[in-house]
Amino acid sequence: LPPEAFFSGRGLDRADLLRARPDRLAELAAQPDARQLVWMEGLPLLDDRGRLVWDRVTVPSLFLGKDGGKPRFSPLPDAPPTGIAFGLLGQLDGTDAPLFACALSLANWHGRHGHCSVCGQPTTMVRGGWSRRCAGCGAEHFPRCDPVVIMLAEHEGRLLLGRQPHYPPDRFSALAGFVEPGETIEAAVARELSEEAGIEIADVRYVASQPWPFPSSLMIGCTARALGDALTVDFTELDDARWFTRAEVAAAVSGEASAAFLPPPRFAIARTLLEDWLTA
Amino acid sequence: LPPEAFFSGRGLDRADLLRARPDRLAELAAQPDARQLVWMEGLPLLDDRGRLVWDRVTVPSLFLGKDGGKPRFSPLPDAPPTGIAFGLLGQLDGTDAPLFACALSLANWHGRHGHCSVCGQPTTMVRGGWSRRCAGCGAEHFPRCDPVVIMLAEHEGRLLLGRQPHYPPDRFSALAGFVEPGETIEAAVARELSEEAGIEIADVRYVASQPWPFPSSLMIGCTARALGDALTVDFTELDDARWFTRAEVAAAVSGEASAAFLPPPRFAIARTLLEDWLTA
Repeated sequence: LPPEAFFSGRGLDRADLLRARPDRLAELAAQPDARQLVWMEGLPLLDDRGRLVWDRVTVPSLFLGKDGGKPRFSPLPDAPPTGIAFGLLGQLDGTDAPLFACALSLANWHGRHGHCSVCGQPTTMVRGGWSRRCAGCGAEHFPRCDPVVIMLAEHEGRLLLGRQPHYPPDRFSALAGFVEPGETIEAAVARELSEEAGIEIADVRYVASQPWPFPSSLMIGCTARALGDALTVDFTELDDARWFTRAEVAAAVSGEASAAFLPPPRFAIARTLLEDWLTA
Repeated sequence: LPPEAFFSGRGLDRADLLRARPDRLAELAAQPDARQLVWMEGLPLLDDRGRLVWDRVTVPSLFLGKDGGKPRFSPLPDAPPTGIAFGLLGQLDGTDAPLFACALSLANWHGRHGHCSVCGQPTTMVRGGWSRRCAGCGAEHFPRCDPVVIMLAEHEGRLLLGRQPHYPPDRFSALAGFVEPGETIEAAVARELSEEAGIEIADVRYVASQPWPFPSSLMIGCTARALGDALTVDFTELDDARWFTRAEVAAAVSGEASAAFLPPPRFAIARTLLEDWLTA
């Protein structure tokens, strides 16, 4: 079975047919078992156990879906989050992670789409928050979901990992980059590894995917076989990139104090890729 | 080896580091071996052999990359294409297909992003056409690439295929839908099959991907195992959905006149999925 990354899972019943029914959404919001998310500084608020916090519905702007039949909504937060909320993600319970990702991705998108990209006029939220329509030209705009490839390149038993400038000291993780228009997943993996590390690869294999709500990505986790180990690191993108042995990766993932590097956190799909690679 | 869908391949060297160097791009555009794409009615023009047509550079707006060192640009077309150009795609040579997808996706995106979605002010093309910047608030916007899952559900040797209302008579193809914020690829496959056909599934397996420039999607081709064969078809989305035997699929893909259905065309990843399924 393929591994499951954090943020995976079905989450709520999205009940998409209801999105086009504002009358039904208003009825659902008025039900006594309806609830809405609580936000704090641009992020969904968590309780002491890392679960999402819910309140009575006051502003039923986003229809998130149904949780065992119970309607779940969300207002829009006042502000976007400031950077990736690493601390909060460390607390987040996995059960609520898909819904956290959904609500935050949608909120991030609404926060940057108050105007129509076609004509510049203001847009308004429609379909229970699953699109915005332009009051001027009538264009409808749907939420973005940006595919990103993230990959482990292997060469004779060693893995290529890199450091982005914003990482904490000693952390190394999988290289990654946005899939561009006109590319397959496989072509994007090959291009990113060529651009960032100067290696050519073959045998791209899909491993797992993960929604990533900073601001709204679909992480597509892969492995690839490097045809050589000579690196030409793009230091405009990375602080460093190096090959690590299986023993070094195992020590890092086990949290050994003497490990050669600090692994990515458990909520990152890069960690899932490393753990999956160690089991192979 | 995984199958290769039409539009697959590395295409040009995108030479992404040059995008941030307008001085270098201007030099490249002035080279005698520089060329730009020719457009016709919103689509790249093809010659009699299905190859892209190139001309001397007059308006070096999009930098597509380098073809064996030779700079390749594109102006923006005057208008978007009207619908999916099935006739033209049937003529397109596979060698040029990745570049066709890249240029058309980018052009489609520019055509709908002349204004800033944050503040509504006009945007201008920067980075050789790989982003747009707002003259008002300074926001930078990158091209969209919308992930779509497209999948074959199998139940005891039979495949589930459906008909969209705009298909030609007798055509059946794989079901598909956009990945939504907060979803994995696997969750999107399960949701779409539940919504459109009323079936529950397990064992989602990634097969292949394909860029699809109508307007700018990343098709993610998968298979899944259906847990039952009772269908509840969503007739607001589909004209029909049915199970087909291996013999029926084989006859359709072979082009037999008496086949139970007309298969998707060779440039659709659905065709690749069917052909791959028949070889398994």
